[in-house]
Amino acid sequence: MKIPVVRDILEVNDRIANEHRELFRKNNLLVLNLTSAPGAGKTALLEHTIGHLKETIRIGVIEGDIQSSADAERILRAGAVAVQINTDGACHLDANMIKAALPAINIEETDLLFIENVGNLVCPAEFDLGENYKVMILSVAEGDDKPEKYPLMFHEASVLLINKIDLLPYVNCDMNKIRETVLKINPNIAIFEISCQTKEGLHNWFQWVSDHIKT
Amino acid sequence: MKIPVVRDILEVNDRIANEHRELFRKNNLLVLNLTSAPGAGKTALLEHTIGHLKETIRIGVIEGDIQSSADAERILRAGAVAVQINTDGACHLDANMIKAALPAINIEETDLLFIENVGNLVCPAEFDLGENYKVMILSVAEGDDKPEKYPLMFHEASVLLINKIDLLPYVNCDMNKIRETVLKINPNIAIFEISCQTKEGLHNWFQWVSDHIKT
Repeated sequence: MKIPVVRDILEVNDRIANEHRELFRKNNLLVLNLTSAPGAGKTALLEHTIGHLKETIRIGVIEGDIQSSADAERILRAGAVAVQINTDGACHLDANMIKAALPAINIEETDLLFIENVGNLVCPAEFDLGENYKVMILSVAEGDDKPEKYPLMFHEASVLLINKIDLLPYVNCDMNKIRETVLKINPNIAIFEISCQTKEGLHNWFQWVSDHIKT
Repeated sequence: MKIPVVRDILEVNDRIANEHRELFRKNNLLVLNLTSAPGAGKTALLEHTIGHLKETIRIGVIEGDIQSSADAERILRAGAVAVQINTDGACHLDANMIKAALPAINIEETDLLFIENVGNLVCPAEFDLGENYKVMILSVAEGDDKPEKYPLMFHEASVLLINKIDLLPYVNCDMNKIRETVLKINPNIAIFEISCQTKEGLHNWFQWVSDHIKT
């Protein structure tokens, strides 16, 4: 039931993504491709991360949205360089869109580049952008059955941030079930439990980012 | 930045969808295409709706998921006929997938057919399945900025169910902002505030469904 041309599109995408990867490597740039379902907290996470790290790490953000520049404006207010991509209907970012956005980032003067993908647990998992790691967010309000329903994203991610843990008393979400299912799909994934509302657990994430900055 | 072949795919899809629509009309079948982001509560809504209406209305459900049959099993336990489509990676249902699933539903003996789409606020908005109405769910935990970020889905839907209102005391979500933004995009949309947890507001939705059953 796949669209027959997808393979060709992915091959072209991967070629461009490999060019990006080489460029990022040469410039000692850590690039994180941030994915989640709509409303899981990607932009809120970036606001906290920029707020905490901007004094010591030079941060840029490429914001992907179908339309609107509201998220890029939030990033600017948080204190990082931001570029907005509007995909004009497309449900994911691809490497060519990143190519169009990169000239707006001075990558020689940047240590860490976040790419905030379109809110979607499906297609962003298939498109390599040349990043070092995919980092995904799951909100506890989405429920504990998401890993088994959207396994590719959990398989591709190197880090899973389980967000909105302040809502745990009010939702049906079994954290052990999430951990068990995710680790079966992806035994090497790093899992952090966080709340962007109360800031609980965010220090572990900040530490992970600092540990992966290239020197 | 669109994939160049999308137009052709949509034309083929719309031809098949029109055949479905004619078939549904001849059989006095009300067909609702249910969409939302992952974890907004589509299956929970169906469980409540089936529980409430199954004594008076004959209900069938086509379940769309990338993989797993967990949702179809929940629907069977709730007391309706269920068919599971696994899209094998695709981020939305298309009319051809519905064509493959329809033989498993006895539509002459069915009054109401729900099609539960893949959890995704983007592509399901573009694919007509031959339904009478698109019904979408937004969880308050996703935040009040979703209508401006995913406008096509809110434009295409005839009904918006704002779910998990029991979480309103614990999340940053301005219900007036949602209503205002949605009604700007789609002035004719029916909006119901509900909680599948506490059952608050569900009677308005049950009434809407009953009012639209064909006789």
